[in-house]
Amino acid sequence: MATTDEKRGPFDYSNDPVRPSPHLLVRKDEPFNAEPTLSALVRRYITPVPEFFKRNHGPIPDLDASKHTVSVEAPELPSITSRRFNMSELRQFPKREIIAAIQCAGNRRDGLNKLAKVKGVIWAAGTIGNATWAGATMRDVLLAAGVPEYDDPAVRGWHVSFEAIGECEEDRVYGSSIPLWMAMSPNRDVLLAYEMNGATLTRDHGYPIRVIVPGVIGARSVKWLDRITIQPAESNSFFQQRDYKILPPHVRENELAEWWPRLVALQELNVQSVICEPTEDQSVNGGPLTIRGYAISGAYWRMHVSVDGGRTWKMAELYNTSPSPERHWGWTLWALRVPKLSIDAELVCRAWDAAGNTQPELPVYNYRGVMNNAQHRIRVLPSSKV
Amino acid sequence: MATTDEKRGPFDYSNDPVRPSPHLLVRKDEPFNAEPTLSALVRRYITPVPEFFKRNHGPIPDLDASKHTVSVEAPELPSITSRRFNMSELRQFPKREIIAAIQCAGNRRDGLNKLAKVKGVIWAAGTIGNATWAGATMRDVLLAAGVPEYDDPAVRGWHVSFEAIGECEEDRVYGSSIPLWMAMSPNRDVLLAYEMNGATLTRDHGYPIRVIVPGVIGARSVKWLDRITIQPAESNSFFQQRDYKILPPHVRENELAEWWPRLVALQELNVQSVICEPTEDQSVNGGPLTIRGYAISGAYWRMHVSVDGGRTWKMAELYNTSPSPERHWGWTLWALRVPKLSIDAELVCRAWDAAGNTQPELPVYNYRGVMNNAQHRIRVLPSSKV
Repeated sequence: MATTDEKRGPFDYSNDPVRPSPHLLVRKDEPFNAEPTLSALVRRYITPVPEFFKRNHGPIPDLDASKHTVSVEAPELPSITSRRFNMSELRQFPKREIIAAIQCAGNRRDGLNKLAKVKGVIWAAGTIGNATWAGATMRDVLLAAGVPEYDDPAVRGWHVSFEAIGECEEDRVYGSSIPLWMAMSPNRDVLLAYEMNGATLTRDHGYPIRVIVPGVIGARSVKWLDRITIQPAESNSFFQQRDYKILPPHVRENELAEWWPRLVALQELNVQSVICEPTEDQSVNGGPLTIRGYAISGAYWRMHVSVDGGRTWKMAELYNTSPSPERHWGWTLWALRVPKLSIDAELVCRAWDAAGNTQPELPVYNYRGVMNNAQHRIRVLPSSKV
Repeated sequence: MATTDEKRGPFDYSNDPVRPSPHLLVRKDEPFNAEPTLSALVRRYITPVPEFFKRNHGPIPDLDASKHTVSVEAPELPSITSRRFNMSELRQFPKREIIAAIQCAGNRRDGLNKLAKVKGVIWAAGTIGNATWAGATMRDVLLAAGVPEYDDPAVRGWHVSFEAIGECEEDRVYGSSIPLWMAMSPNRDVLLAYEMNGATLTRDHGYPIRVIVPGVIGARSVKWLDRITIQPAESNSFFQQRDYKILPPHVRENELAEWWPRLVALQELNVQSVICEPTEDQSVNGGPLTIRGYAISGAYWRMHVSVDGGRTWKMAELYNTSPSPERHWGWTLWALRVPKLSIDAELVCRAWDAAGNTQPELPVYNYRGVMNNAQHRIRVLPSSKV
């Protein structure tokens, strides 16, 4: 598969899908990494597949669904016999459909890169998307494979490790893990998904089967799923052990090896909101103007928007389609109509979750540029000045 | 029981327990509301019962455990027959012991009262305590009463309502509710507790039986438990419908009726940390000095302390006895040794949870003064200046 070409690196990207979207900003061609413009992103509650961000660590696998299987193994649990599920077996489990926003841990990395140089693809605020996902629940598949309930002393505190098929730049294959309680808990809605927005998954998004872990950084929603392992410890993967962690502000490249083992692997997402319209430095007239954006912080929350740099705040109108609070994984779109804007207005937004957590006023630097959820601030230029 | 005495109000508090603790600051005598000093609080990982904050809304019930029962009812679920459990029946369920910090939603209300007048007992940062709690799991008791799994379509999205025995100033009785999924989820560890720190509950803390809801505002951990009702909606209690909600900053007394129905009832706690030693305006020498405090934000987190008003931060040493991350309900005590302090040093602390949420730099006002988790700031006076 990988024909080494000196000029192009060790991997062959020539079989990657063709991706037609005028709203996608390509941050890197090989591996393919792209995010939509913010004004495209905020236009629809369900993000269309072509405009959904693509985050890759290698060439896109080109799998044959009729031959593909997913193995479930638990080498340290004698009661379990390894088994493989093919796609038609996975489709025989009850089909669960959920709406879930998936966000990359590196979303808004550009904001941290302004503080000091960060390592990673310099994403803006578009590496988030809100889709419907359908498939078997991880719970059903693990129970069918004989995995005990997560409360069973034999597996309490264990983890579920996922491995993808395909080549990967940083490790042997792409891998990640989540705690077993999360994988098995009925109200966490972890899926083995084969559909996105009502259609078969596209290659870019994990065809024929991927993990969806709602409420957790996108890195754990492993695409092109090959292997599930139930094990006492977290995944040994680069992406669990040595990446996707929040480094202290002073740590740089030469201290990574020392710090990585001391830090916890990221899972749950923090409170987040972003202004998508208007955009930074957009020229607008003095008003009226509608400010729009997205937020993720569960179903029950408040959205504050300021047009004076954070001195005063107004509550925005919210739009989401939450079925019930404990199963709310979708994002919320919000809007605030402002009658008048001052010259050089600084727009700021901050979301609050049900517990009263909110976004920090200013970003705190970390070298890998992850989990930036500082209040989103943009300046607009009144058109009279332009 | 309640002999009305014009001079003393409608309730009789003469049978309240005698409470000997030199470290308890009484905020209100009737009903009894008291919190420990911060330096007493930070001294031990497990808070002793006499120094554990007391939050009451009426006289303390004086119940006979040999006659006390707890009912489980579900009037809108035909499959369930109401039943009552007496204390020896409750003790026959497997005994679960957990360490959990319980925090009042009004903890640190004094910080919001500095911004504008708030309604409620003006608590400092001592309405939190960390104890071992033991009893039957709510899950076991509800299953024994015939309540279906929370994922069952018959009860999906339902709530579990708790009522206490005894008189209450704001309502007929004290009541609250939590979502059924939370009550039933094995990894939420909701208890019907009859022991605190290895001994029978004291009257002040709910003898003979109380609810413990880890990770949630103290208001839901109903004491002197009388009645459990499984129902489609939240509790109708004053404390669920019309209190313990975060009002927008502009709302005052005359707008409460309009705002309460529009706001969600508080449940989960936000990220919190407090400096307990030294205390505000304490005179200290120029150093070395050990700064100590508590934090709640799950097992995996970081604790930042600043001695220059938040310009620079150091990581504190942590102490907790977490058995496993998904079951961590205890607080963490932390300490930072500082070699030297400047004149008029401003000490600040901020905790981070595993998701990267942290405490806001400055408090945001709400009239009921709940959920204040702003970065805790104190000024110390170097003794050379005193």
